[in-house]
Amino acid sequence: MSTSVNTEITAELIAAGKVAHELDREHVFHSWQAQGPFDPMTIIKTEGSWVWDGEGNKLLDLSSQLVNTNIGHQHPKVVAAIQAQAATICTIAPQHVNDARSEAAKLIAELTPGNLNKIFFTNGGADANEHAIRMARVHTGKHKVLAAYRSYHGGTHLAVNVTGDPRRVASDNATDGVVHFFPAYLYRSYFNSTTEAEETQRALRHLEDTIILEGPSSIGALVLESIPGSAGIYVPPTGYMEGVRELTSKYGIILIADEVMAGFGRAGQWFAVNHWNITPDLLTFAKGVNSGYVPLGGVAISEEIFETFLQRPYPGGLTYSGHPLACAAAVATIKAMQEERMVENSARLGAEIIGPALTELKAKHPSVGDVRGTGCFWAVELVTNQETREPMAPYGGSSPAMAAVTGALKKAGMLPFVNFNRIHVVPPLNISDADLRTGLAMLDEALSVADGFVTD
Amino acid sequence: MSTSVNTEITAELIAAGKVAHELDREHVFHSWQAQGPFDPMTIIKTEGSWVWDGEGNKLLDLSSQLVNTNIGHQHPKVVAAIQAQAATICTIAPQHVNDARSEAAKLIAELTPGNLNKIFFTNGGADANEHAIRMARVHTGKHKVLAAYRSYHGGTHLAVNVTGDPRRVASDNATDGVVHFFPAYLYRSYFNSTTEAEETQRALRHLEDTIILEGPSSIGALVLESIPGSAGIYVPPTGYMEGVRELTSKYGIILIADEVMAGFGRAGQWFAVNHWNITPDLLTFAKGVNSGYVPLGGVAISEEIFETFLQRPYPGGLTYSGHPLACAAAVATIKAMQEERMVENSARLGAEIIGPALTELKAKHPSVGDVRGTGCFWAVELVTNQETREPMAPYGGSSPAMAAVTGALKKAGMLPFVNFNRIHVVPPLNISDADLRTGLAMLDEALSVADGFVTD
Ligand SMILES: Cc1ncc(COP(=O)(O)O)c(C=O)c1O
Ligand SMILES: Cc1ncc(COP(=O)(O)O)c(C=O)c1O
Repeated sequence: MSTSVNTEITAELIAAGKVAHELDREHVFHSWQAQGPFDPMTIIKTEGSWVWDGEGNKLLDLSSQLVNTNIGHQHPKVVAAIQAQAATICTIAPQHVNDARSEAAKLIAELTPGNLNKIFFTNGGADANEHAIRMARVHTGKHKVLAAYRSYHGGTHLAVNVTGDPRRVASDNATDGVVHFFPAYLYRSYFNSTTEAEETQRALRHLEDTIILEGPSSIGALVLESIPGSAGIYVPPTGYMEGVRELTSKYGIILIADEVMAGFGRAGQWFAVNHWNITPDLLTFAKGVNSGYVPLGGVAISEEIFETFLQRPYPGGLTYSGHPLACAAAVATIKAMQEERMVENSARLGAEIIGPALTELKAKHPSVGDVRGTGCFWAVELVTNQETREPMAPYGGSSPAMAAVTGALKKAGMLPFVNFNRIHVVPPLNISDADLRTGLAMLDEALSVADGFVTD
Repeated sequence: MSTSVNTEITAELIAAGKVAHELDREHVFHSWQAQGPFDPMTIIKTEGSWVWDGEGNKLLDLSSQLVNTNIGHQHPKVVAAIQAQAATICTIAPQHVNDARSEAAKLIAELTPGNLNKIFFTNGGADANEHAIRMARVHTGKHKVLAAYRSYHGGTHLAVNVTGDPRRVASDNATDGVVHFFPAYLYRSYFNSTTEAEETQRALRHLEDTIILEGPSSIGALVLESIPGSAGIYVPPTGYMEGVRELTSKYGIILIADEVMAGFGRAGQWFAVNHWNITPDLLTFAKGVNSGYVPLGGVAISEEIFETFLQRPYPGGLTYSGHPLACAAAVATIKAMQEERMVENSARLGAEIIGPALTELKAKHPSVGDVRGTGCFWAVELVTNQETREPMAPYGGSSPAMAAVTGALKKAGMLPFVNFNRIHVVPPLNISDADLRTGLAMLDEALSVADGFVTD
């Protein structure tokens, strides 16, 4: 069995990329885009923390694509595992037993906190959240779902309706029993807080008020990203998540922790909830579980909820639940992460390199309003004025300033993750210290462009 | 690059299967099951039309798993393509151009009828339907969706709500603007029809009445399996689908043809709609597109609907849209199907072997009420009495009789697809004539068991 092929950038590869680009514009309909003006970048090669564009330029992938390649591109152990599984059993229906599926479930159950011992596999993050909400609704017999503004939970109908960002509004925007509350987010506090302690206390009071006014007897679930990702990587203040766990237990509400982006080492722990030693009733995952090498997501289920479905059929399923190729990739990914201590490395990179560097950049650049994060999961929030905190692009939109910064990052040699007025620093967890420092230097360069848009 | 490994059934393989079974019961949460009494079969090897259970018994896979392995198990060309793609680029975010994705989109666009030239990729069938409905709703600005009773469209919230089988009822069962109508199904006509022509005419009149009474100005989409699959493989009578196409055009309703199960040669044509030469506005696919070797689904989009999203962003997406590994498997699958003329073979097997054999079995066995199908897509409907057509298990349920038949099929050496009072004959499209005849002989044997449950 061969492992990763070390493709050279040849004229053929570049020519093939041009054909691919033409066919793409002819036939591929892209996620979230206005298809007309959209001009996608061609990627002709990927390796570790690097990708090569259609012209053969090497770019540092500080986006981890959509924050999913936690082990970087083309990790040889995982590539080999996919190839080996392909040679034996590619696919098997969900009602059968398959060894790759069994082993993936065991490894994930071992890693998840508390009594989350049963694993339901899905294809991605959206359907993981859809099924988790169904489990909670059937388990409790209560229909309403609480979810936070400034959140993202996926693109299918129910998942986008629990989402609390502009993508929900742009969709068909039904409510279907979903009620949104305001999250704890100190930098732009919805509660006029000025300290962490105040924010925690006020945000929890707001949540409890919402529960009481909506009626605890009607609320089946509360779904929450342990650390909100696309919406701004705002780590909840001390005490907040413990408080959410207490309130949901007190009112008989199932707590669903969405760890699709924050999980699998991204936040410097196997799961972000480990930061607060809490155990949700359901935990959803995808992305990092196998770095997206094969589509996979899932729900880790508490023993209590599992018991509801011992005699009563679970009313949900999908053709590819527990797909062998995806599960084999998960097994190999988790083992590689353990062997190469990637989660520990993620924590170290955050504490020793990214955190200090971003703090320095904030001191240096007047365009930087806030920097925050943990592990390999950081946001840099750009403002036109540090005092007023006026965002460099409006919520839900873009701006010439942000377009200029994005252009500068690409010119500097980086594939960035940019959202509204934020740049996310979300490298693979096994990026080398040297590459990471290179990336942070590129960011420094681009922030000088941002500084040009600062006003008094 | 190695291709398919020809695993021997060894003591080690059987022992590994036992470990996998234990871990499964410990940690795997299964689709659609009551988890307690469920005792899944272990599969330790798959090849072509055959699978091997945990004891090493060889079983003929007449289920094609969940009717997805249209090319059979472990097709060497597709295994090799997955291995080769894994060696170069496993994953890339949906906003970039990737050659495997471009080529898959091109091949699918070429195969789909009419002006369905743009392809949006999803992970499976459920999310394909979710996105198709969103496209229709945004395109028309109308929210209501018509869908048929006795249908299945997937397990996520919206997909299960358009579904018209008991799985919808067992779920949270919101309506969310979904209105169900009665399909054309002559054997158990909802319109007291006794001929095909009558059924077509009455079912279309019922559909038009429903449209008028619900109000055309509120109906954005009509979603329909071109040939309903899990719900009974009941091929629509002559003229019905043409009539549905006419009515939807007349009233400005987007026609979504769900070809997740019926597509990619299953029904003896690349797509089942080819039987009637109609072009839907949106066509959803999954399963057969790459035989489920890697999770993949999608929506083929008409130029008119595409134009709606030229300047206006499409409000939907997913991390793994157009996944390179899944798309490479689709490219290899489609090419293998073309090279080995599998679609033509599917039509031939239906016309020359399955159809005639089932007609004989119906004449021979008093337990057989109806046989119907096309290509490699057939249903055998069991009854306790051919006159009264009393089903051998109630709609939505099971019975000792059906359990006995299922047991007899397995004992005869078959992995069957059984649903309520039906046995589906849904082999791979490239099954050998000899294997297929063997399978039909097994069915003959098991039907004698069914005959024992016939009453006067
Ligand atoms: C927190 C979170 N939940 C859910 C999802 C949806 O996952 P998918 O795109 O695989 O459906 C995402 C994707 O970005 C996410 O970040
Ligand atoms: C007609 C039809 N549509 C949709 C689906 C859902 O596909 P998936 O299980 O991949 O979500 C199925 C699955 O059996 C199906 O048969």
